[in-house]
Amino acid sequence: MESLEGKCVAILADNGFEYSELSSPKESLEKAGAKVEIVSTGEGEIRGWSNDEWKGSYNVDRTIGNVSHEKYDALIIPGGVMSPDALRKNTRAVEFVRSFFSSHKPVAAICHGSQLLIDAEVLEGREITSYPSIQKDLENAGAKWVNQEVVVDQALVTSRTPSDLEAFNKKVIEEINEGKHAKQTV
Amino acid sequence: MESLEGKCVAILADNGFEYSELSSPKESLEKAGAKVEIVSTGEGEIRGWSNDEWKGSYNVDRTIGNVSHEKYDALIIPGGVMSPDALRKNTRAVEFVRSFFSSHKPVAAICHGSQLLIDAEVLEGREITSYPSIQKDLENAGAKWVNQEVVVDQALVTSRTPSDLEAFNKKVIEEINEGKHAKQTV
Repeated sequence: MESLEGKCVAILADNGFEYSELSSPKESLEKAGAKVEIVSTGEGEIRGWSNDEWKGSYNVDRTIGNVSHEKYDALIIPGGVMSPDALRKNTRAVEFVRSFFSSHKPVAAICHGSQLLIDAEVLEGREITSYPSIQKDLENAGAKWVNQEVVVDQALVTSRTPSDLEAFNKKVIEEINEGKHAKQTV
Repeated sequence: MESLEGKCVAILADNGFEYSELSSPKESLEKAGAKVEIVSTGEGEIRGWSNDEWKGSYNVDRTIGNVSHEKYDALIIPGGVMSPDALRKNTRAVEFVRSFFSSHKPVAAICHGSQLLIDAEVLEGREITSYPSIQKDLENAGAKWVNQEVVVDQALVTSRTPSDLEAFNKKVIEEINEGKHAKQTV
């Protein structure tokens, strides 16, 4: 297994994140040796969601007003219909996402997480996948949408649903190990 | 008050519809004399949503596989993050929405309801509003997005949130009374 010792990864989420899409990448990254911090819009806890009900919670490590990409080697954006919908209304959250692209760092989004990439205006010509309901939105934003368990395009890693998590986590670790990609840009 | 006697209106919704965005237009239309039918993807009941929790339910009158625009004078699409997200994945639901445009009939969408209009490909050059999180998706689909409590563009009525419902319901009734608009098209 590849080691992520010394790497620090941000997970950007808000209330209603799909529980497994935060818990599974977090565990996988920590097992590989990375430090993981949860970034959100407010202080305290954020609640997860699974199978039509609230499920679990995580403490927020940093709020979006007090954070910069400089501290992190990569960004993960979990899905769920509520969490990305709340985050994309927040200008600082959108700028935070965009800053990982302008600094050429790996970004991984699963399910509805890639809605943030639409607002960050970073999708022109990029190959991605997502939860199928937002395919049209991603295509209208300039992306080439494909139906695969995981898509890797120059440090941008995307998956469709929780059932893709094993493949997603594996590629996320690979891309973080590879580091910056010049073609991951705005 | 204008009368909608003899008019029949479809409300297209699924689990997780914003409760007031179905209940309030339904009551308003029925008070004006219209018949209202709830159309959804499956039989039985659909559950509403309000203030971060499930709230109430409605019986489904017709399933999307057994319905045509021909029976209806207008279409209403409530919001909530879950209901339109589920409906837009359903090809028949998207075709049902599009059929109201090709037959020049009034369509009203509130909050996230207008996500269906993206998949129906009916937004090029149309003026609309919505819940602010999806502004970019609507603009990328060709719409001109404005920040108003209600926007009326040739039989297309849109609003932002439950607090706009009074203005929304009033315009919906006006547009149904006016009937077909040649410029409401695909």
